[in-house]
Amino acid sequence: MVLRVQYWHDGILRMLDQRLLPYQESWLDLQTWQDVREAIKDMAVRGAPAIGISAAYGMALAAGAGESLDVAAAELASSRPTAVNLFWALDRIKSLPEKSFHTILAEAHRIEQEDIACNEKIGENGAALFPENARVLTICNTGSLATGGHGTALGIIRTAHAQGKVKHVYSCETRPRLQGLRLTAYELLHDGIPFESIVDSAAASLMHARKVDCVVTGADRITANGETANKIGTYMLAVCARHHGIPFYVAAPWTTFDPSLASGDLIEIEERDGREITHFDEKQIAPEGCPTLNPAFDVTPGDLIDAIISDRGVHRPPYLFTSQS
Amino acid sequence: MVLRVQYWHDGILRMLDQRLLPYQESWLDLQTWQDVREAIKDMAVRGAPAIGISAAYGMALAAGAGESLDVAAAELASSRPTAVNLFWALDRIKSLPEKSFHTILAEAHRIEQEDIACNEKIGENGAALFPENARVLTICNTGSLATGGHGTALGIIRTAHAQGKVKHVYSCETRPRLQGLRLTAYELLHDGIPFESIVDSAAASLMHARKVDCVVTGADRITANGETANKIGTYMLAVCARHHGIPFYVAAPWTTFDPSLASGDLIEIEERDGREITHFDEKQIAPEGCPTLNPAFDVTPGDLIDAIISDRGVHRPPYLFTSQS
Repeated sequence: MVLRVQYWHDGILRMLDQRLLPYQESWLDLQTWQDVREAIKDMAVRGAPAIGISAAYGMALAAGAGESLDVAAAELASSRPTAVNLFWALDRIKSLPEKSFHTILAEAHRIEQEDIACNEKIGENGAALFPENARVLTICNTGSLATGGHGTALGIIRTAHAQGKVKHVYSCETRPRLQGLRLTAYELLHDGIPFESIVDSAAASLMHARKVDCVVTGADRITANGETANKIGTYMLAVCARHHGIPFYVAAPWTTFDPSLASGDLIEIEERDGREITHFDEKQIAPEGCPTLNPAFDVTPGDLIDAIISDRGVHRPPYLFTSQS
Repeated sequence: MVLRVQYWHDGILRMLDQRLLPYQESWLDLQTWQDVREAIKDMAVRGAPAIGISAAYGMALAAGAGESLDVAAAELASSRPTAVNLFWALDRIKSLPEKSFHTILAEAHRIEQEDIACNEKIGENGAALFPENARVLTICNTGSLATGGHGTALGIIRTAHAQGKVKHVYSCETRPRLQGLRLTAYELLHDGIPFESIVDSAAASLMHARKVDCVVTGADRITANGETANKIGTYMLAVCARHHGIPFYVAAPWTTFDPSLASGDLIEIEERDGREITHFDEKQIAPEGCPTLNPAFDVTPGDLIDAIISDRGVHRPPYLFTSQS
């Protein structure tokens, strides 16, 4: 059974509410583009490719309701700032020669189907880099739940596991929202891939103990020079992997590349509500008045990334991506 | 007002239950050495110096009840394996020439008082290393709550703050038990020291953004060659600090040094229950059946530690500690 995070059904977008996973499999019925925007903003759906697909379906909902596509596109684009796939999917809808409900819906379906095919290609390209009996470390959720299906970094792990090449996965829990502990664990259990969940800060000592053969992460945006915005903690993993001489790989569909940005300092890094740190669900953990700093992403320089794996192939440093490359 | 974590009162050991902080200030009345053992094991009290003091008072309770001191000492010693202060305090009690209730209690008081004086000395020695307007990063809780009073790494921050040298503290939340978010934040708010709590994995990107002037952590055990067992995540900070050319300091009383061990691979690293990761309080976060790996500590090699600050002075690598040094 393949995990699916969202699908179009009978004029609405049905979406698995990932905020409730793994306790509860609850589906949202999104009937308007405003519903979709709220779902992206509040992270009922997350993962760069998945939110691009959601936004495309949101445009279909706007067209179906006869609402202004320009307004819907602008509002959907402002739901989250860092992942480029969101803007890419909206641009693709906006550049359709004819923007009827049916053409937009068909394009959203195509974006979704292409993403799955693309992930399978990433899986093949990346699995080829894994040694036999690979012990792989990853962070956040980059699987079926973050994409149209299969996954990017987790898609590579899936493909390599199907090829019998994965001995063990270390899954970083991924504070503050615990996408690793909640979602990646859910997918790894679902697929029967051997793994252990760890706290993020334990990754370095596993590397020191020579228990990790490679690290593979996803990406939210990759600039022309290969600088990669991804979940907070990714940069820490890259620094530690380099210190221990362990290959560090990034996996992403070509839609995550943004060659229009020369370097990572131009990427807007989303700063999220400190309650993600100070509270668990509604329960307060930190003392009253505890100040926080809560960047959702960090940026890893290209020279710390041994390869960037896309549907187009395996890219090696020094990176120089162009819109044609 | 000085924070105190435990005190002897009217024949019992009164102990602040740190498992409930910062929500609730609840005091335990420990009447037997078995109560003390349970409190250490279940982390009602934690922090290497503090559990040494608790164990000493536990021995006084054993003597007062006329129980076997050998049994009590052996059982208290087995409550937690990594921090050496526990064994040191028990050895000090065991080597008393006369082991009456009164002599043991007096020795426990001395151990506590000496720890406070020692921390103040560490504070002075360490604060001298801070630049003006220091932006300091720390992990776990190493303050009054972890010691007899004042603190080790946090004691240095306290002393430096009193000297007007601290611009900002970044406090790592310290998964899985969140001692940073719960306890260090509590102490920093109490003392009015400016700070922000961050997720552990955000430390590297703050270093990259040149927002950190130095890192200072505590220690649970330091071997002859300076290898330091401390809270999981400490090694990650040391690797990242070195990568960014940021000084990494360890602060500990001399009682935390264990020159009888040649190197860190001889330190037993406590593996704790995976529920610390998969559950929050009683609530399950991870999917059912999620496997975990949960080492409570890691070991940082001496060559990544720019200085070890003790009550005896500032030690610089290469380290070669002996029982006389």
